[in-house]
Amino acid sequence: MKYKAEIDIMPLKALLDPQGKAVTGSMKNLGLAEIQNVRIGKHISLEIDAASKEEANKKVDEACKKLLCNQIMEFYEFRISEN
Amino acid sequence: MKYKAEIDIMPLKALLDPQGKAVTGSMKNLGLAEIQNVRIGKHISLEIDAASKEEANKKVDEACKKLLCNQIMEFYEFRISEN
Repeated sequence: MKYKAEIDIMPLKALLDPQGKAVTGSMKNLGLAEIQNVRIGKHISLEIDAASKEEANKKVDEACKKLLCNQIMEFYEFRISEN
Repeated sequence: MKYKAEIDIMPLKALLDPQGKAVTGSMKNLGLAEIQNVRIGKHISLEIDAASKEEANKKVDEACKKLLCNQIMEFYEFRISEN
Protein backbone atom coordinates (compact mmCIF):
# COMPACT_ATOMS: atom_id res chain seq x y z
CA MET A 1 0.00 0.00 0.00
CA LYS A 2 1.15 3.53 -0.78
CA TYR A 3 1.43 6.08 2.00
CA LYS A 4 2.39 9.74 1.91
CA ALA A 5 4.58 11.30 4.60
CA GLU A 6 4.89 15.00 5.39
CA ILE A 7 7.97 15.72 7.48
CA ASP A 8 8.89 18.99 9.21
CA ILE A 9 12.51 19.46 10.28
CA MET A 10 13.15 22.54 12.41
CA PRO A 11 16.11 24.01 14.29
CA LEU A 12 15.99 23.04 17.99
CA LYS A 13 14.08 25.60 20.05
CA ALA A 14 17.15 26.20 22.23
CA LEU A 15 19.26 27.22 19.23
CA LEU A 16 19.38 30.60 17.52
CA ASP A 17 17.99 30.54 13.99
CA PRO A 18 19.83 33.32 12.12
CA GLN A 19 17.83 32.92 8.92
CA GLY A 20 14.58 33.23 10.88
CA LYS A 21 15.91 36.26 12.76
CA ALA A 22 16.75 37.98 9.45
CA VAL A 23 13.27 37.29 8.11
CA THR A 24 11.67 38.57 11.34
CA GLY A 25 13.60 41.83 10.78
CA SER A 26 12.46 42.06 7.15
CA MET A 27 8.81 41.71 8.19
CA LYS A 28 9.09 45.05 9.97
CA ASN A 29 10.39 46.73 6.80
CA LEU A 30 7.44 45.30 4.88
CA GLY A 31 4.93 46.75 7.33
CA LEU A 32 4.22 43.40 8.96
CA ALA A 33 5.62 44.14 12.42
CA GLU A 34 2.91 41.92 13.97
CA ILE A 35 4.83 38.90 12.71
CA GLN A 36 7.42 37.69 15.17
CA ASN A 37 9.58 34.78 16.14
CA VAL A 38 10.00 33.41 12.62
CA ARG A 39 11.82 30.10 12.48
CA ILE A 40 12.84 28.43 9.25
CA GLY A 41 13.38 24.75 8.64
CA LYS A 42 12.76 22.12 5.99
CA HIS A 43 9.60 20.49 4.79
CA ILE A 44 9.95 17.12 3.07
CA SER A 45 7.21 15.15 1.38
CA LEU A 46 7.70 11.58 0.22
CA GLU A 47 5.85 8.47 -0.84
CA ILE A 48 6.40 5.10 0.73
CA ASP A 49 5.35 1.55 -0.06
CA ALA A 50 4.53 -0.35 3.12
CA ALA A 51 2.27 -3.16 4.31
CA SER A 52 0.78 -1.10 7.13
CA LYS A 53 0.74 2.39 8.55
CA GLU A 54 2.95 1.20 11.44
CA GLU A 55 5.57 -0.09 9.02
CA ALA A 56 5.47 3.17 7.05
CA ASN A 57 5.88 5.03 10.32
CA LYS A 58 8.95 2.98 11.23
CA LYS A 59 10.57 3.46 7.81
CA VAL A 60 10.04 7.21 7.79
CA ASP A 61 11.41 7.47 11.32
CA GLU A 62 14.49 5.54 10.18
CA ALA A 63 14.93 7.81 7.15
CA CYS A 64 14.72 10.90 9.38
CA LYS A 65 17.25 9.54 11.85
CA LYS A 66 19.70 8.20 9.26
CA LEU A 67 19.58 10.86 6.58
CA LEU A 68 17.13 13.72 6.74
CA CYS A 69 17.54 15.19 10.20
CA ASN A 70 20.71 16.25 12.00
CA GLN A 71 19.51 15.56 15.52
CA ILE A 72 22.29 17.60 17.08
CA MET A 73 20.78 20.81 15.71
CA GLU A 74 17.30 19.84 14.53
CA PHE A 75 14.16 18.01 15.57
CA TYR A 76 11.58 16.39 13.31
CA GLU A 77 7.87 15.68 13.27
CA PHE A 78 5.91 13.82 10.63
CA ARG A 79 2.43 12.70 9.72
CA ILE A 80 1.57 9.78 7.49
CA SER A 81 -1.58 9.46 5.43
CA GLU A 82 -2.84 6.99 2.86
CA ASN A 83 -2.11 8.11 -0.66
CA MET B 1 -4.54 37.84 20.33
CA LYS B 2 -1.56 35.68 19.48
CA TYR B 3 -1.77 33.16 16.68
CA LYS B 4 0.75 30.67 15.41
CA ALA B 5 1.21 29.95 11.71
CA GLU B 6 2.83 26.90 10.15
CA ILE B 7 3.76 27.47 6.52
CA ASP B 8 4.96 24.90 3.99
CA ILE B 9 6.68 26.19 0.86
CA MET B 10 7.37 23.55 -1.77
CA PRO B 11 8.73 23.50 -5.32
CA LEU B 12 5.89 23.50 -7.88
CA LYS B 13 4.82 19.96 -8.80
CA ALA B 14 5.63 20.61 -12.46
CA LEU B 15 9.26 21.46 -11.68
CA LEU B 16 12.13 19.08 -11.13
CA ASP B 17 13.44 19.11 -7.54
CA PRO B 18 17.13 18.12 -7.82
CA GLN B 19 17.70 18.06 -4.05
CA GLY B 20 14.74 15.72 -3.62
CA LYS B 21 15.95 13.52 -6.49
CA ALA B 22 19.37 13.19 -4.82
CA VAL B 23 17.76 12.22 -1.51
CA THR B 24 15.51 9.67 -3.26
CA GLY B 25 18.69 8.08 -4.66
CA SER B 26 20.36 8.03 -1.24
CA MET B 27 17.38 6.23 0.27
CA LYS B 28 18.19 3.23 -1.93
CA ASN B 29 21.76 3.16 -0.63
CA LEU B 30 20.45 3.18 2.95
CA GLY B 31 18.22 0.16 2.35
CA LEU B 32 15.06 2.26 2.18
CA ALA B 33 14.16 1.68 -1.47
CA GLU B 34 10.43 1.81 -0.54
CA ILE B 35 10.77 5.55 -0.16
CA GLN B 36 10.18 7.42 -3.39
CA ASN B 37 9.35 10.76 -4.89
CA VAL B 38 11.04 12.83 -2.18
CA ARG B 39 10.46 16.56 -2.53
CA ILE B 40 12.18 19.11 -0.35
CA GLY B 41 10.96 22.57 0.52
CA LYS B 42 10.85 24.98 3.43
CA HIS B 43 8.85 24.93 6.63
CA ILE B 44 8.35 28.24 8.40
CA SER B 45 6.75 28.78 11.78
CA LEU B 46 5.89 32.23 13.10
CA GLU B 47 3.83 34.06 15.67
CA ILE B 48 1.44 36.82 14.81
CA ASP B 49 -0.54 39.38 16.77
CA ALA B 50 -3.97 39.90 15.24
CA ALA B 51 -7.50 40.80 16.27
CA SER B 52 -9.05 37.75 14.61
CA LYS B 53 -8.12 34.56 12.84
CA GLU B 54 -9.21 36.12 9.53
CA GLU B 55 -6.84 39.04 10.03
CA ALA B 56 -3.99 36.69 10.94
CA ASN B 57 -4.79 34.70 7.81
CA LYS B 58 -4.59 37.82 5.66
CA LYS B 59 -1.29 38.96 7.17
CA VAL B 60 0.35 35.56 6.75
CA ASP B 61 -0.85 35.37 3.16
CA GLU B 62 0.66 38.80 2.54
CA ALA B 63 3.98 37.74 4.14
CA CYS B 64 4.09 34.63 1.93
CA LYS B 65 3.39 36.58 -1.26
CA LYS B 66 5.74 39.49 -0.49
CA LEU B 67 8.69 37.75 1.09
CA LEU B 68 8.61 34.07 1.90
CA CYS B 69 7.51 32.37 -1.31
CA ASN B 70 8.83 32.78 -4.83
CA GLN B 71 5.59 32.04 -6.65
CA ILE B 72 7.35 31.49 -9.96
CA MET B 73 8.95 28.31 -8.63
CA GLU B 74 7.11 27.52 -5.39
CA PHE B 75 3.65 27.21 -3.88
CA TYR B 76 2.68 27.66 -0.27
CA GLU B 77 0.13 26.32 2.19
CA PHE B 78 -0.37 27.36 5.78
CA ARG B 79 -2.48 26.67 8.83
CA ILE B 80 -3.13 29.08 11.66
CA SER B 81 -3.89 28.10 15.23
CA GLU B 82 -4.36 30.00 18.47
CA ASN B 83 -1.18 30.18 20.45
